Amino acid sequence: MLKALAIDVGGTKIYNAVVDETGNIISEVEKHSTPKNYDDIIKTFKSVIEKFEDEVDVIAFSTCGAVNNNNTRIIGSTGNIAKEYPKTDFQSLSKKPVFLENDANCAAWAEFETGASKGYSNSVMLTLGTGVGGGIIAGGKLLKGKNGAAGEMHFKMRTDKHRKCTCGGWDCFEIYTSGTGLKLTGEELSNNPDITTYDIIEGKNNGDKLMTAIFERWQNDILAGLIGLANLFDPDLIVLSGSMAQFVDTDYLTREVNKEIVTTPLKVVKAALKNYSGMIGAALLAVRSLNGKS
Amino acid sequence: MLKALAIDVGGTKIYNAVVDETGNIISEVEKHSTPKNYDDIIKTFKSVIEKFEDEVDVIAFSTCGAVNNNNTRIIGSTGNIAKEYPKTDFQSLSKKPVFLENDANCAAWAEFETGASKGYSNSVMLTLGTGVGGGIIAGGKLLKGKNGAAGEMHFKMRTDKHRKCTCGGWDCFEIYTSGTGLKLTGEELSNNPDITTYDIIEGKNNGDKLMTAIFERWQNDILAGLIGLANLFDPDLIVLSGSMAQFVDTDYLTREVNKEIVTTPLKVVKAALKNYSGMIGAALLAVRSLNGKS
Repeated sequence: MLKALAIDVGGTKIYNAVVDETGNIISEVEKHSTPKNYDDIIKTFKSVIEKFEDEVDVIAFSTCGAVNNNNTRIIGSTGNIAKEYPKTDFQSLSKKPVFLENDANCAAWAEFETGASKGYSNSVMLTLGTGVGGGIIAGGKLLKGKNGAAGEMHFKMRTDKHRKCTCGGWDCFEIYTSGTGLKLTGEELSNNPDITTYDIIEGKNNGDKLMTAIFERWQNDILAGLIGLANLFDPDLIVLSGSMAQFVDTDYLTREVNKEIVTTPLKVVKAALKNYSGMIGAALLAVRSLNGKS
Repeated sequence: MLKALAIDVGGTKIYNAVVDETGNIISEVEKHSTPKNYDDIIKTFKSVIEKFEDEVDVIAFSTCGAVNNNNTRIIGSTGNIAKEYPKTDFQSLSKKPVFLENDANCAAWAEFETGASKGYSNSVMLTLGTGVGGGIIAGGKLLKGKNGAAGEMHFKMRTDKHRKCTCGGWDCFEIYTSGTGLKLTGEELSNNPDITTYDIIEGKNNGDKLMTAIFERWQNDILAGLIGLANLFDPDLIVLSGSMAQFVDTDYLTREVNKEIVTTPLKVVKAALKNYSGMIGAALLAVRSLNGKS
């Protein structure tokens, strides 16, 4: 059975584990803080790879940033590793084949092969966290676009330049529906700049009217985006993951989406896999690539 | 060389012609008014098919409505043929194989094989007319979704229920960027319920300030949608066709889209083929299907 060393590179943490070709994690999961300095990030990669490369058939990175269609390079990224990341020759880090894919794409693929969207050829996965990531599976394949950057959830929720997005543009889905988005909606509706997502969720759970209204505005912004995605992709499922997904009412979203779309009925569900879906998806995709499938 | 009888079914006109496997129209184009009565529509199909079926290898329909993934049936439609259309067994109309595809998908495919997006594997085509149609090519294939309904340009431009869309939902891209959308934007900004798209275009061409402002609002709504589509699909090209596309400044749209997207640079261009792209695309797809390619 083929095995991959899976390495999940996030803005704050790097995880690694050995994953077999069926998606099972077969080693202990190691966790490192993401170094601030890019040279130190590469050193972390190297030490992890040296330790495990003899045991595995392929090195599989799940990473922030867009990955090219050959799965060899990062073509763009954000945050502290932005500048150096696209220059890196990942294959030089190991004598085994090295495979890269975007983390949201990896998570979408893991859910497709072993999780919530198993058996469905068309799905949209959203990771609702500090930001919002997207991975789209169309006809049983990852939607990558011309350079591998497809699936960015930066489409506009309004056109009057109301809220600046982290991407530099205005009024993207991400800046309304992420955790950050919930806080900003809270600030707008409460006139309290110090409000936190915790205040909103707690207040809503305790029946506070204002906090409930803030939460519902946020959830209805998610709904508005899902309607558009359903009309564009006609998916079987929309899968929600990430730290903010736990607060969402998927029965409500399923019902309301299906009321308004012009395409065919779908379900909104929560992801089945937890924190390690990035590693699992990267490993499954890397093994698939070894086997010559795209 | 394989040949198709191509039949393009629109809400007001039905066109037909014989098209060869390279996309050349090799007969005179016939034009019929679309009958009001569904039985008469079927009679028109039958008489056209009887006349030409012995000359061709396949019957290729380009039609309004969503077409299933087997290209055999309409799964949903709008307008006067809505109710009966999904019940129709199209194969019963001819002894030759019968193939159907949605008209915007056909137009997108015709541009991909022989027109503006030739040589590019990833493109989004928008038909800006009375309404707005969409056809998406991803990785060299039509994006169809689970039931063939993908590519509907009904994503929201705002979330405050400002303008009702023809689809029954609120504030879709279509109801801001179609010809109807231009008129509605004109009504809002001029307080004149009798304003026409002609008034707006003529006024803008003559330097009228208000008409120019209306036009620019409309064009910037198109821009806002294109930014979202570019971030979702990372396409090589966005192709604009339809009667309203002639008024749009594609250099402006290309420049402004590329300023704001997080994916990689693309071009916004006008379609190369004119009125017959539906027939040409249907014929090319039907021949492809005869040859066993999906």
